[in-house]
Amino acid sequence: MSTVPASWLDEIPARLAEIERAHLLRRRRVVQPAGGARLLVDGQPMLAFCSNDYLGLAGHPALAEAAREATRSFGVGSGGSPLVSGHSAANAALEQELAAFVQLPRALYFYAGYATNTGIIPALVGDGDALFSDALNHACLIDGARLSRASIHRYPHADLAALEAALAASTARRKLVVSDAVFSMDGDLIDIPALLALCERFDALLLLDDAHGFGVLGPQGRGSLAQAGLTGVAASRRVLYMATLGKAAGVAGAFVAGDDALVEWLLQKTRTYIFATAAPPLLASALRTSLSLIEAADDLRQHLAARIAQLRAGLARLPPALGWQLLPSDTAVQALVIGSNEAALAVMESLREQGLWVPAIRPPTVPAGTARLRIALSAAHTAEDVDQLLQALHRHAALALPVPAAA
Amino acid sequence: MSTVPASWLDEIPARLAEIERAHLLRRRRVVQPAGGARLLVDGQPMLAFCSNDYLGLAGHPALAEAAREATRSFGVGSGGSPLVSGHSAANAALEQELAAFVQLPRALYFYAGYATNTGIIPALVGDGDALFSDALNHACLIDGARLSRASIHRYPHADLAALEAALAASTARRKLVVSDAVFSMDGDLIDIPALLALCERFDALLLLDDAHGFGVLGPQGRGSLAQAGLTGVAASRRVLYMATLGKAAGVAGAFVAGDDALVEWLLQKTRTYIFATAAPPLLASALRTSLSLIEAADDLRQHLAARIAQLRAGLARLPPALGWQLLPSDTAVQALVIGSNEAALAVMESLREQGLWVPAIRPPTVPAGTARLRIALSAAHTAEDVDQLLQALHRHAALALPVPAAA
Repeated sequence: MSTVPASWLDEIPARLAEIERAHLLRRRRVVQPAGGARLLVDGQPMLAFCSNDYLGLAGHPALAEAAREATRSFGVGSGGSPLVSGHSAANAALEQELAAFVQLPRALYFYAGYATNTGIIPALVGDGDALFSDALNHACLIDGARLSRASIHRYPHADLAALEAALAASTARRKLVVSDAVFSMDGDLIDIPALLALCERFDALLLLDDAHGFGVLGPQGRGSLAQAGLTGVAASRRVLYMATLGKAAGVAGAFVAGDDALVEWLLQKTRTYIFATAAPPLLASALRTSLSLIEAADDLRQHLAARIAQLRAGLARLPPALGWQLLPSDTAVQALVIGSNEAALAVMESLREQGLWVPAIRPPTVPAGTARLRIALSAAHTAEDVDQLLQALHRHAALALPVPAAA
Repeated sequence: MSTVPASWLDEIPARLAEIERAHLLRRRRVVQPAGGARLLVDGQPMLAFCSNDYLGLAGHPALAEAAREATRSFGVGSGGSPLVSGHSAANAALEQELAAFVQLPRALYFYAGYATNTGIIPALVGDGDALFSDALNHACLIDGARLSRASIHRYPHADLAALEAALAASTARRKLVVSDAVFSMDGDLIDIPALLALCERFDALLLLDDAHGFGVLGPQGRGSLAQAGLTGVAASRRVLYMATLGKAAGVAGAFVAGDDALVEWLLQKTRTYIFATAAPPLLASALRTSLSLIEAADDLRQHLAARIAQLRAGLARLPPALGWQLLPSDTAVQALVIGSNEAALAVMESLREQGLWVPAIRPPTVPAGTARLRIALSAAHTAEDVDQLLQALHRHAALALPVPAAA
């Protein structure tokens, strides 16, 4: 056999082994729906608290029916960029309905959320401009900021005083503030009226990513901006509202909405939009049905709110001696900070043995020392499901507590 | 009424007006399939030469049936990242089949091509590393390169001598060469064996984007790398093969395939993969059917090759006095360079009036002075369709030629 010459590629297996030794290797599980919040995970039935399908719509028969029906007129693929032949009648109709749903002048529908933010940020600001970014923003907002070449001012999470100081100190003519509405690993909601007031005061544009609020928050699920009363006649031209459609909406993709000229500008200038294949019309059709289900889903949102309250009440009764910390959140994302990677993994493993799937989120996704369970609730969870999780956590807690010394 | 304070946002409408004055405003058309290569475009029937659906599979009934059937087991949305609960049994099966189809050890399936390249490049190289990029690479390869923070060496299109010199001059330990296989606006195929030989010699990794070759080129449509005889037992660990699934495959999404450890590395490190929602299982299911159709589609590829030959023979008979230039290409993408933006737009408009849709591609998508018709052929085109296009071009040419002076 010939000798393989040495290469920098030889280091890849060793670097993978390092990741494994640090207990940071990510493993995929093969998943199949099994009814309600239940999944078959690598063939084993599990009750899952890790899906972003917050209203339980991903498996709704009406969405599937709309997708099936659309294949009869549209086939499957869109065949091209929306600027050439990919902008189907289904996608065009969805855009109109998205804008009406979020009560903003115009919407642009994208095939994916990640590509939306990495595309629109460089379309808005560039070299010489200033971008202000919450420290806990999602990866795609960070990548979009990097791509833009604007100077980046990262402010501590939700610290609007720090943001104000940074805006006041900036001499850039174009300023863009970028923030998640609901933060994906903490579940907290930013103070949108205060954030927008700063943007108005310092002539900044606000890009608000409502991935985890759309469909769940606000009247009829219209999202966090509507909940703040800042849509419709109260809409500001200084807000671009972005949301994903693969979470509460149960399908895939994303959109951005706002002032008509701004959205036209994005259509003209967003590379991830112009130089990419449009989303399949069957997904747009399923989303049109999803919007009408979301609008009518006050019962699902009330049921979800009750499960959130039930979970938080039960977690509040965990023994304080454990040092676990439930972060403040009214949303479907509930973060229970455990601390060390090892401890968080132990809780996850203990739950897994009891047929419950709750992911442990570790650095670098969250800051070091704040490894946590990210409990994602859904309208698909029953009260019994949440009880089962609480009982399992209380059992684990009882075993994990140090034995009290004899009096 | 209160006075609206001045803002940098006020410039947006003026900047849009500038784009319009330069005849560079992009307008979307609302499209609906109308059989074969025909589309309803804003309600008008058109014969289209602008779709990337090179085998005509996007409307194939078997793909639609597979998508419909999948909704019965999987619903519509995947509900989460593939690293959490989004990796469905359908997506897992597709990955196995993609790897087998392209005759490489392992594949990773992504929701979109743009997000694949902007994600995997920064996962492979970073600060202190060197990246070598063909000047005509697709926008997503350029954005991925920028995001990586590697030092970027852009070489003239297909100039392998220039690439060789740049590789030889580089002292970076990690080197990545990035190239389209078939260039999207010219249609030419890079010399893959020569490109790979350079990578082997200088210990560089090659990322080859086969968006426009997959399904069309190579035995059974296995792509340009298989056509070069560089898959299976001849596969090099120095190639990552990437292709999109919304063009010849007729659906949406993309994949990357190669060495097992390298693909595992990408799974662990690609932000656009880890922090994004997995593709809907119904698309993966349609793609599994698409792969078997592609494999058996020698008749479609022969039909497409005959249409390419027919078109090129007909274009060769255009009057040389026009100064139009047909670029060399054996692929479905045929570029007829007209020259000025105005002239290219005039040809497009003349074709449009005759019910033919062939897009004029202008700067900055192509270099200044090389505005062109990008004629995309498909197995859905009949010989009569191509004749219709040729006749219309010859009619336009006859009118556009200067009247010869009397002898």
